[in-house]
Amino acid sequence: MTNLTPSDKALVPFVSVDNMMKLIHHIGIEPMLIGLGEYIEADFKRWELFDKTPRVASHSEQGVIELMPTSDGEVYGFKYVNGHPSNTADGLQTVTAFGLLANVANGYPVLLSEMTMLTALRTAATSAVVARLLAPKGAHVMAMIGNGAQSEFQTLAMKAIVGIDEVRLYDIDKDATAKCAANLQGLGIKVVPCDTAEEAMLGAQIVTTCTADKQYATILTDNMVGSGIHINAIGGDCPGKTELAPAILHRAGIFVEYPEQTRIEGEIQQLEPDHPVTEIWQVLTGQAQGRTDDKQITLFDSVGFAIEDFSALRYVRDQIKATDLFDPLDLLADPEDPRDLFGMLQRAK
Amino acid sequence: MTNLTPSDKALVPFVSVDNMMKLIHHIGIEPMLIGLGEYIEADFKRWELFDKTPRVASHSEQGVIELMPTSDGEVYGFKYVNGHPSNTADGLQTVTAFGLLANVANGYPVLLSEMTMLTALRTAATSAVVARLLAPKGAHVMAMIGNGAQSEFQTLAMKAIVGIDEVRLYDIDKDATAKCAANLQGLGIKVVPCDTAEEAMLGAQIVTTCTADKQYATILTDNMVGSGIHINAIGGDCPGKTELAPAILHRAGIFVEYPEQTRIEGEIQQLEPDHPVTEIWQVLTGQAQGRTDDKQITLFDSVGFAIEDFSALRYVRDQIKATDLFDPLDLLADPEDPRDLFGMLQRAK
Repeated sequence: MTNLTPSDKALVPFVSVDNMMKLIHHIGIEPMLIGLGEYIEADFKRWELFDKTPRVASHSEQGVIELMPTSDGEVYGFKYVNGHPSNTADGLQTVTAFGLLANVANGYPVLLSEMTMLTALRTAATSAVVARLLAPKGAHVMAMIGNGAQSEFQTLAMKAIVGIDEVRLYDIDKDATAKCAANLQGLGIKVVPCDTAEEAMLGAQIVTTCTADKQYATILTDNMVGSGIHINAIGGDCPGKTELAPAILHRAGIFVEYPEQTRIEGEIQQLEPDHPVTEIWQVLTGQAQGRTDDKQITLFDSVGFAIEDFSALRYVRDQIKATDLFDPLDLLADPEDPRDLFGMLQRAK
Repeated sequence: MTNLTPSDKALVPFVSVDNMMKLIHHIGIEPMLIGLGEYIEADFKRWELFDKTPRVASHSEQGVIELMPTSDGEVYGFKYVNGHPSNTADGLQTVTAFGLLANVANGYPVLLSEMTMLTALRTAATSAVVARLLAPKGAHVMAMIGNGAQSEFQTLAMKAIVGIDEVRLYDIDKDATAKCAANLQGLGIKVVPCDTAEEAMLGAQIVTTCTADKQYATILTDNMVGSGIHINAIGGDCPGKTELAPAILHRAGIFVEYPEQTRIEGEIQQLEPDHPVTEIWQVLTGQAQGRTDDKQITLFDSVGFAIEDFSALRYVRDQIKATDLFDPLDLLADPEDPRDLFGMLQRAK
């Protein structure tokens, strides 16, 4: 059989995991987190432009597989992502992901990328962009509750974007804390492993919760949360999975990405469906108030939204242009005469 | 930078366009259409098992980009597909597609495949499986109205699965008819190019309409359709795009894939939302009647459904196992310790 060379239109740039890691090191982790934060902030500021829909989820006993599409009218993007808490026990990732950008005008894909790494970075960048907006002035200590795959990225994003200089680690699994502490050595931030969540919260202005159990857990109880703190709640992100005691929610100013999705998936699934929340994009554009005073507890009830992935893919697309960190993927049949798909097939014989 | 070898779990088998064409020729077009038809029929027969949802569409002025997910509880699949009628004028495909299968139990993708070619084959196989069920006994002549990219596949599927021995071609574009006729030469079927749609329908028991304009077109008028015919309507497949005069619909027994989707996208968008239709899977399982008598006009109002893509991907997954017609794609980050994504990134430095 002849190995026909596909046309340029048929080839979609593909960023593998290996190339994504090379791209991250090429740019630098912290500069990339800052860059991603800028793209995410820019897209949040043009929020109303986007086609928005809650993610399309396929739930099973073991977990969930989701498609997260969005479009700004010129570019379309979607992410495939799974969430399987029991995977860790089998030596697999809880979350794996990949994503795609396409040209709205003709429907042709223009980028396919791994997004397991990229989702970790964009989640951390989003957290930090929001914390910069909502955390009390001069916040420089973060408690990191849950020291799994997301914890180092959260820490470095808070360092690069918010300016924290100390992270206090706690996990029910001491090996996870040791892993996180070892990974953060030498990266220019003071790391304090702690034996309890209470100890981790000593002196912290920001507390990030990021645990993976699919259950109504209580990672933070009401008496652990003092006034003025900013809570960055990452791990409550699907129906039946929350981390905070409801009493905390009643004391906090609650900020969300997309209420229609957060009310199903976030911490606020524990509240009445009309409990007031503020949309982050409106704080960024000045249409809504952020933190009201030094004593307010602010809560970012983060579940992850399609626009953040869209921003991250846009960033990657722009960054790889000057590099060779992608492979041309023969994903699209592109016959010379578009009506002659069959002729293309026969000529390949 | 070190080029770390990804683990097996991180590698997803990818079927490129080139490999798909090789696979088709390796199996043979007609045997592959028959095989696809068997998988589609098997999945239609276990229809109730599947998670079903109308496709998730992102519409624009120029066209539509859709995600079509489904799951049988063990395997999850989705297809990305665009539909941009104006693409042909720019030398691009109207429809391009790719698809994915994943393991429901852990969310890991197990197959990524081009689906532009594969969609053409599965659409034709579905048409033929339904025509075998609904066309009058002894049907052996098909009128093929619209001689674009789908026409040769439709013809060969009807030959392989229904047993037609003559196809009568008509298109408003004579070049398209000439292209189709040339492609079908020597493939064991009598090919009759026609100057009008009326001429194409002379002696035909099956008429397939497959045109691409996004408009309420009338490819078939009421007086063109005699009794006993089976209409296989492929081209009316999105809101605002139909091919048949409403009077034909009122005379026909109407069969559909998934009513919730067909009422939005199919020919029956022209009818009242409660107009009676029969679901194909119920005819296949014996729960509903197919053709009632020799004089009935049967209409398969086909829009394409996610389960057909799922079946096609299952078929490809099974067929490539014994071949080398796929590439391992480094799509998933799979660190040795699943909690240590950051460590994997640092070690790649």
